[in-house]
Amino acid sequence: MRIALAQIDARVGDLRGNSERILNALDEAARRGASLAVFPEQTLGGYPALDLWEEPGFDAANERALGALARKVRGTAALVGFVSRNRDRVGKAARNSVALLHEGKIVAVRHKTLLPTYDVFDEARYFEPARENPPIRWKGLKLGVTICEDAWAVDPSSSRRLYKKDPVAAQAKAGADILLNLSASPFLRGKTAVRRKLLNAHARRLKKPLLYCNAVGGNDEIVFDGGSLAYDAKGVLRARAAFAAQDLLVMDTDTWEGATLAAEPNEVGQCGEVLTLGIKDFAAKCGLQTAFVGLSGGIDSAVVAALAARALGPQRVIGVSMPSAYSSAGSVSDAKALARNLGIELKTAPIAGIYQAFLQACGPDWGQGTPDLAEQNLQARARGAILMSLSNKSHRGFVLTTGNKSELAVGYCTLYGDMCGALAPLADAPKRLVYQLAAWLNAERELIPRATIDKAPSAELKPGQKDQDDLPPYDQIDDALEAWVQERLSPARVTRAVGSRAVAETLMDRMDWSEFKRRQAPPGLKISSKAFGLGRRMPIAKAGWRERAGL
Amino acid sequence: MRIALAQIDARVGDLRGNSERILNALDEAARRGASLAVFPEQTLGGYPALDLWEEPGFDAANERALGALARKVRGTAALVGFVSRNRDRVGKAARNSVALLHEGKIVAVRHKTLLPTYDVFDEARYFEPARENPPIRWKGLKLGVTICEDAWAVDPSSSRRLYKKDPVAAQAKAGADILLNLSASPFLRGKTAVRRKLLNAHARRLKKPLLYCNAVGGNDEIVFDGGSLAYDAKGVLRARAAFAAQDLLVMDTDTWEGATLAAEPNEVGQCGEVLTLGIKDFAAKCGLQTAFVGLSGGIDSAVVAALAARALGPQRVIGVSMPSAYSSAGSVSDAKALARNLGIELKTAPIAGIYQAFLQACGPDWGQGTPDLAEQNLQARARGAILMSLSNKSHRGFVLTTGNKSELAVGYCTLYGDMCGALAPLADAPKRLVYQLAAWLNAERELIPRATIDKAPSAELKPGQKDQDDLPPYDQIDDALEAWVQERLSPARVTRAVGSRAVAETLMDRMDWSEFKRRQAPPGLKISSKAFGLGRRMPIAKAGWRERAGL
Repeated sequence: MRIALAQIDARVGDLRGNSERILNALDEAARRGASLAVFPEQTLGGYPALDLWEEPGFDAANERALGALARKVRGTAALVGFVSRNRDRVGKAARNSVALLHEGKIVAVRHKTLLPTYDVFDEARYFEPARENPPIRWKGLKLGVTICEDAWAVDPSSSRRLYKKDPVAAQAKAGADILLNLSASPFLRGKTAVRRKLLNAHARRLKKPLLYCNAVGGNDEIVFDGGSLAYDAKGVLRARAAFAAQDLLVMDTDTWEGATLAAEPNEVGQCGEVLTLGIKDFAAKCGLQTAFVGLSGGIDSAVVAALAARALGPQRVIGVSMPSAYSSAGSVSDAKALARNLGIELKTAPIAGIYQAFLQACGPDWGQGTPDLAEQNLQARARGAILMSLSNKSHRGFVLTTGNKSELAVGYCTLYGDMCGALAPLADAPKRLVYQLAAWLNAERELIPRATIDKAPSAELKPGQKDQDDLPPYDQIDDALEAWVQERLSPARVTRAVGSRAVAETLMDRMDWSEFKRRQAPPGLKISSKAFGLGRRMPIAKAGWRERAGL
Repeated sequence: MRIALAQIDARVGDLRGNSERILNALDEAARRGASLAVFPEQTLGGYPALDLWEEPGFDAANERALGALARKVRGTAALVGFVSRNRDRVGKAARNSVALLHEGKIVAVRHKTLLPTYDVFDEARYFEPARENPPIRWKGLKLGVTICEDAWAVDPSSSRRLYKKDPVAAQAKAGADILLNLSASPFLRGKTAVRRKLLNAHARRLKKPLLYCNAVGGNDEIVFDGGSLAYDAKGVLRARAAFAAQDLLVMDTDTWEGATLAAEPNEVGQCGEVLTLGIKDFAAKCGLQTAFVGLSGGIDSAVVAALAARALGPQRVIGVSMPSAYSSAGSVSDAKALARNLGIELKTAPIAGIYQAFLQACGPDWGQGTPDLAEQNLQARARGAILMSLSNKSHRGFVLTTGNKSELAVGYCTLYGDMCGALAPLADAPKRLVYQLAAWLNAERELIPRATIDKAPSAELKPGQKDQDDLPPYDQIDDALEAWVQERLSPARVTRAVGSRAVAETLMDRMDWSEFKRRQAPPGLKISSKAFGLGRRMPIAKAGWRERAGL
């Protein structure tokens, strides 16, 4: 059968627009001779719609939109994800469903069995699982349809098995001729390889062809990276759709005619593409126009500005240099060189006057002791307010924060200061990755000035300040971050990763203590298995928990 | 049997401290002749510990702490909630459990069957449910032990039944002589009556005495209000513990000797007590000392300052008046009168100089158009930065934000401005309730000046500005808030509640659109069935979803 994998970028809540996107893709699939087009999970209403999923009327609106869509589907059938109302009287009110649409009708409806409820996923909050899920008989075939997590009963990246059922295996056992999985699987580093391992194992073990259609596009923190896959019954990878871009593959699942393998960037390139798409879609889906980025001359702000210019075009990015008495000469000249390289506008707004005015307002005794963090925070807050003011005055302007994950982890950032912004592109990128992204961005020509890459990181909030005077070296921070936040290793193993018990203890304490800052951080683009934000829910008031738990 | 209900205030993550709190309560229960003391759900590790529950080692630390605790338990037995490791190889790694400790041993362990996964609850994220849960045989009795949600199989406040099982009824069916429920049930308006209805129905229907021990205390957004209850086998309420305070009831469940009924405040009084406890515990559990409150002369900041003075004592609250050119004379004099009434220190920091310095820094063309929201935001941000600076200079200082739920709902607040703070006491209090709280606070003597209560609300960010020039009347906002956010009614019913389609549409749009601000808001104390924050997870990028879904 000729099947299309329609890897489209749906918008959350946009039932009408997504219906049009589906029909457009279906037209192309029809032109290219497909009998059936497979769309991602929850294409009709977008993923993740979060609490819209339990908003009364959203399931009924989904069912109405599905009915309207079905009436427009003709020769090429469509497998479309949507939200259905649970008609049982007990249990969650909705189901995560998929419908086969053909010749004006809803031919069949199936539901998701395994509901991911970990990290950023809360599906048990919204959905009642399927009790049974027989293959769909259509055109003499049995289609073994499953939805995303249904394929992850045995997760090759996890040490623990979460589910007793294996819905993909159940499809094969029930005689499915071909396995079709509709997914909304977010990007994270290393995931493309894990997906291949997982799907290859299904196809080989069950001896059935397996087609996997993934979503693509950014939705707040989450970016779907596409890369839809097709395996033959021997587990050979036959087709792969574009990475982090919309795509439509049409292939014959008997002869594999039409199956093509899109290139896949290396891991740093994947991160760069995903962050670019995340910025682009956030702006597009929120209706935002011009991004303001505070340029310190340092590497974080340079990488954010370069990614923003890539995502939005340089004419939609404005850099703002906000020097103070503590700024080095390089901080201004490097920002200028960056703006020139990127072709973005650069504004300059010195903060000395604001800082003095604050000192005056705060009262005579405030500024007399030794300057401490309060003075440093004030400078960062003056800059944050300038950026917000400039973006407020601009038509649909918005601020991108420039902080990286290492800073956010240890709380080396100022609430309402450098944390001001609508989106935090590097919130899940440790400092090491920021350097790698700079190299990736510079691969064709120098965008990020060499001086920016070479200089020692500095907040420049007091005379001669270097990050390494306030913090352990970033390599140790990143090792601790990976061990403690990401991999959730024991304190003993964090110590081993960091190489010093004292440093590891300091870093774990800082990471735990700074939760109050992260709770008010802007959404950050998730690119790791454990990002700060929706997928990591830590209490604020938990003073000393590690010691008091004897850990 | 003489049973104690030990309504204690546990700290999240504080296994060692909570063990001591349990032993102290157990000592008192023993002195008062109790054979058994029942503690709240998850007393050992605190509730909600959120992702600490899935932190590797936390379950093992719970089990170690439980073992150490058991070794210290003698004549008076203890029923204590804790996290246990799931020994099955499939499923979530932990269970929400309770252990009976007696004479140095863990006599029995039981697990929670129904795992709430809605609003602020994410238990399916962490816990594997119990498969069976037989009564505990002890001293010739069968104890029918259940945990919190287990009693809510049929929720009298919900139109939908979520669960097929009814674990409390199952205990009775299995021959339990007495029903014991360990809870961590957060306060929300109207909940005390719902709990009574629920528990009375169980006792009457099953013809068994039912003892219910609730947690007490604030943990970030969530405040447990205590009010533990005891019903006899006819469903008569025999005992009630203190509202929003620690308490220990000891009663004979045959004769009901010792059973006492603590007074319960009216609904506004309950809110006032809960907000006071929430502020007090947040400060105590985060190790914070002095609260800074920006005093505008308006009612919101006055109520926050009064609640803070009640929670922390007036010597730990500092009011800050930050007048501008647009401030009325009353805004300063009313702030002074309030500070005098409360006995708190008042600082003054005018913002005119800061504002001018910002205009200068932002560049010549910035300030030349008609002043708009950007200028207003800038004033709010100057004030936010002053408050943060003063608190940064103070030993363990923190800022309380003063915004109410109505403002937060429609986005009538400035990110990084009046939204600056560690905790937002009124974030779940609509404007109407703020006035009621003012009356409650003034019941004994005038704390909040009459002028503050009587004046029309104003942000005072432009000449002669009144909130009602920028917004529909607060009564309409509160009606829309209740209908759209709280009760989740259809747009048609929101229109009916508000009395105007145009106003209802505007308000629903504003409520949906301002999600980006709320995502970065400080934690707010939850006192309603649907607070902004952890229990309401809305996408930011969802432009036009209501219209596009045909709602």
